[in-house]
Amino acid sequence: MGKKVLIVGAGPAGLEAARGLLDLGQSVLLVEKQATLGGKPIHSDYAALTPDMRPASVAMQEMIDGVTAHGDAVDIRTETQVVACQGDAPDLTVTLRGPAGEATEEVAAAILCTGFDHFDPGSETQMYGYYEYADVITLADAERMLKAGQVVRPSNGEPPRQLCFIQCVGSRDRQIGNQWCSKVCCGIACKQSIEFRQALGDARVFIFYIDLRAYGFWEDELYWRAQEQHNVNFVRGIVTEVTKRGDQLLVKGEDTTMGRPMEVLMDMVILSVGMEPSAGTIEMSKVFELPRESHGFIETIGGPLNTVVTSRKGIFVAGAATGPADLEDTVSSASAAALKAATFIRMAGGR
Amino acid sequence: MGKKVLIVGAGPAGLEAARGLLDLGQSVLLVEKQATLGGKPIHSDYAALTPDMRPASVAMQEMIDGVTAHGDAVDIRTETQVVACQGDAPDLTVTLRGPAGEATEEVAAAILCTGFDHFDPGSETQMYGYYEYADVITLADAERMLKAGQVVRPSNGEPPRQLCFIQCVGSRDRQIGNQWCSKVCCGIACKQSIEFRQALGDARVFIFYIDLRAYGFWEDELYWRAQEQHNVNFVRGIVTEVTKRGDQLLVKGEDTTMGRPMEVLMDMVILSVGMEPSAGTIEMSKVFELPRESHGFIETIGGPLNTVVTSRKGIFVAGAATGPADLEDTVSSASAAALKAATFIRMAGGR
Repeated sequence: MGKKVLIVGAGPAGLEAARGLLDLGQSVLLVEKQATLGGKPIHSDYAALTPDMRPASVAMQEMIDGVTAHGDAVDIRTETQVVACQGDAPDLTVTLRGPAGEATEEVAAAILCTGFDHFDPGSETQMYGYYEYADVITLADAERMLKAGQVVRPSNGEPPRQLCFIQCVGSRDRQIGNQWCSKVCCGIACKQSIEFRQALGDARVFIFYIDLRAYGFWEDELYWRAQEQHNVNFVRGIVTEVTKRGDQLLVKGEDTTMGRPMEVLMDMVILSVGMEPSAGTIEMSKVFELPRESHGFIETIGGPLNTVVTSRKGIFVAGAATGPADLEDTVSSASAAALKAATFIRMAGGR
Repeated sequence: MGKKVLIVGAGPAGLEAARGLLDLGQSVLLVEKQATLGGKPIHSDYAALTPDMRPASVAMQEMIDGVTAHGDAVDIRTETQVVACQGDAPDLTVTLRGPAGEATEEVAAAILCTGFDHFDPGSETQMYGYYEYADVITLADAERMLKAGQVVRPSNGEPPRQLCFIQCVGSRDRQIGNQWCSKVCCGIACKQSIEFRQALGDARVFIFYIDLRAYGFWEDELYWRAQEQHNVNFVRGIVTEVTKRGDQLLVKGEDTTMGRPMEVLMDMVILSVGMEPSAGTIEMSKVFELPRESHGFIETIGGPLNTVVTSRKGIFVAGAATGPADLEDTVSSASAAALKAATFIRMAGGR
């Protein structure tokens, strides 16, 4: 069977890349630093996927089963990290650090699927009060709340009667250094706004946005649906500050369509935090000596016509490790990376 | 070597899928209805790719060479169409109609890469005067103009001193029946606005948009760059009509940020036309008996976690045949389809 392909990270990208290689008959070494597989949708307790609203745990279990079904062809190491990589593909020696200590493995190629981290809205921007006010939460917190089926204000356990999303928190922002658009937050906010309206009956739901980036079919499947079928209110506006008034939150900013200042009281505020390169992405860029592009994600060198090739032969990258990515981007690029890794090994005569 | 995989369409998706399979050692039957390979970037004379501005003809020639380098493993039929498909994969019999008449071929699987058509802005919307005024052109016309290096008003051959883009022509429009966002037009307009500014020196360039959907890295690499380095003016507004005044075009609408009507004179107007299912996509959905989803593109049945699987086993789809797609989407999904077709054949014991 020859040497394995190393896959780092077992979220949607890593699982799809692993299954793709296994399905082709290529053995895989799948390394995950968490104790369980599934990546962000599992470890951040996502309720439902965007845009199809399928339960995340069901969908991810299917992806996991698609990998584990291959038995001995896949060597899965959880609670494990890659700490060194030597040599050149197809003769890579990687050092793994896991529960039983350090060990080295020979692999023929590698695919980095180390994903993204959610922007921490308290780390650099204090203006939205994330760490001060219990009722200011993030998209990820909202997923957890929706998954638990308990949609209540964290401050008092009561259902919110009025809530809003603030878009572009940690994205499109030169001041904090995140110049990119995180691509998925508009779609996810639309999805969640529908879920909140369904869970809460008569609550009013607002989305404050700069540009509503519901691209492709998200336009009518999420954005129009939220507006027309679920009465979600979309307000083009810049929110400059969230403060407390009584037991509510005062959202201040400018309604840019009306061209006037706005001040509205909310029971709950959801910050649509963007994607940043994950800690794992940054670490692996060092271990594998891969340059990061200007935004800090792992650099691919093929332009728009090759989404997974890096500057090191036999080392590929997929999913949000290369930049903001929706699930479609992630699984497509993961399959592409699997194909290119298999091809690399075939060309190198390693199989 | 076993039976071939049929690939229908030799644009970016078809070429990438073909190369992916050939690289894995799988033979391919590549069918293209045009006389030459390359798809829209070649047949519509694109100047440069979005976002990296690489000359389209150079990039596409590289993709073509990646396929033709495989010699006898790839059977390329140009000026040929698939007119019938019988049986079930891995035992498909397809009928091809080409310059030498009809012939049948046995193939093990198929990947449909039939792409999109540019929306025809005269067919249903008369309000922009595309067929009446020579100086009203489309994004595709503008690509041709930029490629030829002759940036002049079609009406009089003089360089325009003031020009604008109108976004969402044939997209996000319930009245004409195209409810989707075409995803790429904002990025392409930003790219072209830079190219026009570079070609024209001191011309003023405007982009009238609803939401500027420069997702991911397009935010700073195209949108901010156009604004800050090339002084392109972005105006959030709805254009309702283009008429003639003297030898110029009068663009009427509403500036929604300022909340007031606008009337501006332009020397040239570029309609940012969207993507529609191509004639080939519609034909192939019939030949292969594949349902089309609500927007009219070929339906995939895997949700966001499988972008290329159709309701018929062994028949896959990639690129803009499934909906609006940028080049990254297109090549990633094409690689994914190649991998899944190869896997299908392996599982079916056909190889």
